[in-house]
Order: sequence, then C-alpha cells, then structure tokens
Amino acid sequence: MSRRYFEDFHAGQEIALGSRVVTEEEVIAFATQYDPQPFHVDPEAAATSIFGRLAASGWHTCAMAMRIVVDNLLRDSSSLGSPGLEQVRWLKPVYPGDTLHVAFQVKEARASQSKPDRGVVVSVWRISNQHGELVCTVEGMSMFGRRPREGGHA
Amino acid sequence: MSRRYFEDFHAGQEIALGSRVVTEEEVIAFATQYDPQPFHVDPEAAATSIFGRLAASGWHTCAMAMRIVVDNLLRDSSSLGSPGLEQVRWLKPVYPGDTLHVAFQVKEARASQSKPDRGVVVSVWRISNQHGELVCTVEGMSMFGRRPREGGHA
Repeated sequence: MSRRYFEDFHAGQEIALGSRVVTEEEVIAFATQYDPQPFHVDPEAAATSIFGRLAASGWHTCAMAMRIVVDNLLRDSSSLGSPGLEQVRWLKPVYPGDTLHVAFQVKEARASQSKPDRGVVVSVWRISNQHGELVCTVEGMSMFGRRPREGGHA
Repeated sequence: MSRRYFEDFHAGQEIALGSRVVTEEEVIAFATQYDPQPFHVDPEAAATSIFGRLAASGWHTCAMAMRIVVDNLLRDSSSLGSPGLEQVRWLKPVYPGDTLHVAFQVKEARASQSKPDRGVVVSVWRISNQHGELVCTVEGMSMFGRRPREGGHA
C-alpha cells in the first residue's frame, strides 16, 4: 500500500486492518498503570465482578485498536493528528486470550475550509473479537495532509 | 472522603481531583507501545511536526486522566464500569514536563430504568495543564451501584 493522503479517503470506504492478541500480562500492566480498578488488575476480584473474570480496561482496548490503526494506516500516511472523538462504545468485555480485529469505516471526508493543505476524515473503528462479536466502536476524526501536486516529487 | 455511591452524584456538581506530572520517558513508553507516530516517539521528528516538539498521544492523555479519576473517585466507589464516551476533544498538545489536573463535572445522574440497583452518571472531565489551559475534555458515562439500604450494614 502506498502512502495515504486525504484524497485517498471517501465516505463508505471500509478498510480491514490487522489484528492483535490480548494477553493477561498486558491487561494487568496497562491497568496497573492507568486504570487500577479491581476487575482490571486482580483476577480473583474480577471473578465476582460484573465482568466474571479479568477484563481489559476500556481505555486499553482503545489503545490496542490505535496501535492496529497506526501500524496499518496512519504510519504510512500524511496524518496530522486528531482533534477528537465523537463517540466510544464499550459493548462487550475484552478478555485475555481474545484476538481483536479492527475495521476502519470512512463516514465522511471533508476538505478543511480554513486550511487548504489538509482535510478531516471522520471514521468509525469497528473492533471485533475472534467470535465475530463487536466489542467496541470508536467514532473519531483524523486530519490528513493533501496529496502534493504533480511536479512536487510526491 | 467516604465511599461514593450513585446517590452521591448530582447535576452541576464539580469535584476537583488530583494532578500528575507528565514525563518524557512515559510519553515515549506509552506511544512506543500504542501510538508510535513520529511526533509521539521521536523528539527530532516531533520538532518539525505540527506539535513543534515531542507531545503525548491523545490516548495517553486520556489514560493519565483516567488514573487520576480512579485514584481520587472510582477506587473508593460502587463503580460498575462504563458503557462509553460521548465526546473527547484534544484541544492543546500535552508536553513532557506538563502537570495535568482533572476536574470532574457531573452533567446528569439518572437512575437506571431497567436495573434498580444502579444509575448512570454522565460527567465531563476537564483536563488542564499547569498554565490553566484546558488541554482535553472527555464526556463519559459511568455506572454506579446505589447505596445499600439501612440495615444492610452499609
């Protein structure tokens, strides 16, 4: 896949990205640092929680999805960061041993009114597990630089 | 502060939580694992980016805020996790050396219609730096168990 610019995105597009295995070690390490609620760090406490067993922090699920998006889409692109997210839904628990898959759906691609060198892509990340269950959705905005004009040695 | 239950939240309430210093080591460590875009992991590349210097991943900013919220509010509460977020805005870059402060504003507290043992608290986290600049806002939902009735040895 060649380098992606703003012009490479259009509404309705769906891009299947990679996957990632969730390990208990990583679930506990992330949660110990950023979300040390008992059901994310302590398997025994998690057993009697609403999750039934140790479950990943929702922020960790998003971070793992972000890594998949960076590796398979943003890394080789004209990404200029993000102004924010419109919605996140944590639909089902993510457990150690799960494999997460991310599909990147383009909802809208609009050129910037104020900055002609870039555009905003509104996307929905659909994060599923190995059973095909949707575990999380993230609707976010990403800014991308426009493709350099011909003659610019793009 | 005693243990917080759903009944302890009401619209309009603002709770100042703690603060946290952002280190370069942690910015690079988080981004290396979850958001390895050049402006989050490589000080030299960051110098010529839109951020001007190394800046924290937006997901990392949220994760650091989450830790402040857990330590100062969720840890000693009847928290039952979160169904999701309504909006995240990354308003200004977060740099190593910054100190982040979180204010937790309650927008709405509503009892669950389907589950009488809990309620949903809609909150806005206002994340500011040491200059008093708002760097990020997170509007999220949290579920809390209701206070046990008297006689229940609460």
